[in-house]
Amino acid sequence: MTTDGNANGNNSGNDSGNDSVSVSVLGLGAMGGALATALVKAGHGTTVWNRSPGKADGLVALGARAAATAGDAVRSGDLVVVCLFDHASVHEVLDPLAGDLAGRTLVNVTTTSPEQSRELAAWAERAGITYLDGGIMAVPQMIGGPGSSVLYSGSADAFHRYEPLLDLWGTSDYFGEDADLASLYDLALLAGMYVMFAGFMQGAAMVAPAGVTARDFASRAAPWLTAMTGAFQEYAAVIDGGDYTVEGQQSLEFSDLGDILAAGSAQGVGTDAVAMVQGLIRRQIDAGHGTEGFARIYESIRRPA
Amino acid sequence: MTTDGNANGNNSGNDSGNDSVSVSVLGLGAMGGALATALVKAGHGTTVWNRSPGKADGLVALGARAAATAGDAVRSGDLVVVCLFDHASVHEVLDPLAGDLAGRTLVNVTTTSPEQSRELAAWAERAGITYLDGGIMAVPQMIGGPGSSVLYSGSADAFHRYEPLLDLWGTSDYFGEDADLASLYDLALLAGMYVMFAGFMQGAAMVAPAGVTARDFASRAAPWLTAMTGAFQEYAAVIDGGDYTVEGQQSLEFSDLGDILAAGSAQGVGTDAVAMVQGLIRRQIDAGHGTEGFARIYESIRRPA
Repeated sequence: MTTDGNANGNNSGNDSGNDSVSVSVLGLGAMGGALATALVKAGHGTTVWNRSPGKADGLVALGARAAATAGDAVRSGDLVVVCLFDHASVHEVLDPLAGDLAGRTLVNVTTTSPEQSRELAAWAERAGITYLDGGIMAVPQMIGGPGSSVLYSGSADAFHRYEPLLDLWGTSDYFGEDADLASLYDLALLAGMYVMFAGFMQGAAMVAPAGVTARDFASRAAPWLTAMTGAFQEYAAVIDGGDYTVEGQQSLEFSDLGDILAAGSAQGVGTDAVAMVQGLIRRQIDAGHGTEGFARIYESIRRPA
Repeated sequence: MTTDGNANGNNSGNDSGNDSVSVSVLGLGAMGGALATALVKAGHGTTVWNRSPGKADGLVALGARAAATAGDAVRSGDLVVVCLFDHASVHEVLDPLAGDLAGRTLVNVTTTSPEQSRELAAWAERAGITYLDGGIMAVPQMIGGPGSSVLYSGSADAFHRYEPLLDLWGTSDYFGEDADLASLYDLALLAGMYVMFAGFMQGAAMVAPAGVTARDFASRAAPWLTAMTGAFQEYAAVIDGGDYTVEGQQSLEFSDLGDILAAGSAQGVGTDAVAMVQGLIRRQIDAGHGTEGFARIYESIRRPA
């Protein structure tokens, strides 16, 4: 992996405002539409295309140009942004247009696996296309607002040339030349999010039979879990240090989730989410590490059986 | 369940400062020690006891009195706080002292199941002991500081009489006369926390093979997951409304976690946490609800197969 020697902003020679960039956005779902809206509102010449018609109307009213075909859209942009359903859709739309894309910069923010990002980067290189892979850490409503961030990897030149434009969507973070890094990070953060959502639903289901609404539970769970993210850095320090016997940690034995499992069952709700964590704990206890810190459940994931 | 008609603070007749309360704390682990410390520092006459000796020394230096026996401690406090290892330890310590406890108020903050809380409340009632069950939503270091909250259920009279003292530990929240409600809520919030921790570890393990440290991942995962707790209220509104077809939701089909599972496997790490969520999603898709909102995974937990 090539580290990014230019990360601290040596952008002399670039047009730091990206004043005259012509951009095309392919794919106008909720996310693609939000990305295009931010570009149009910032005054970039923006061409938009969507497979099914009608999605461009609002953007055209804001000043975007609707392209009749994906090829028309690609040929209209120095920078081509694709935000499609999945990796297969990206190939389906772009494969016939490889010649048109040659010499342009392609930013792919479609959610893809690291392997698919690598594959698409190799495809782009063969076709003479400059490739930048993006992972959006926001829901469409957050684009351009506080809290939105987009992770990038791939061409450092492309990232730095277009950074002012990319910053219109949220904080831009560059990970390096390996195209798959942004995807990997994206999926890892999404994994954390989906698992947390399941944890919230687990808790809400447990109190529901006692007449507690999901709204009431959410009003307590959100600040509680927010406060508990404060523990991540402590766990991370132990994990990076590799010594799970450090003093002052809650032990795996003390973390036994039998009480929570029993309470869930007594309430008549499923306990898959809690049982999953209990399984990670038990594997470490069974391997003789019961007196070590809870952070050791990391090892149950990092080194699966 | 009796709702709490006195919740908005009609405490006339109470000593609102709890100036002259004599308190005993049984169990001086990290949490019991923190609770006792807050009481001593606030000037309450505090007697402390721990099964194994030596734990009281720091508290005695602050002004607490160390009791030689649990019976001595119980007889020294109008209010008796127990913070022991588990429900069995509570019975082991208190059963021989039921006569001494009669007429006093017992606050049990030992982590117990709702069933155990009910059982202990019934035991206390038979013995003429006023019972209040507490669930502490904080780690010991947080006691008395911002972000610490303690959930209570059981005797409303006891809660209101001692509320100023209880507030020394954090925000005090009263749920009602049923002794098990605080435990249930406590365990539901802890379930959410443990599952979130597993989600964090899952993400950290996924990026580790690419050379990303757990600290680096934590620095991004904490603000990301904090931002995503913002979705809880939206999910809760859908869950309480019972209509998962409401417009504008991310569908279950779109939430398929195949990409994340494949990425985890490709990195050579375990994927139990993600597979758990995928299982909750699949059950709803298989039942024909694929186009409905992601919040519907709640139903996979609330109504297990």
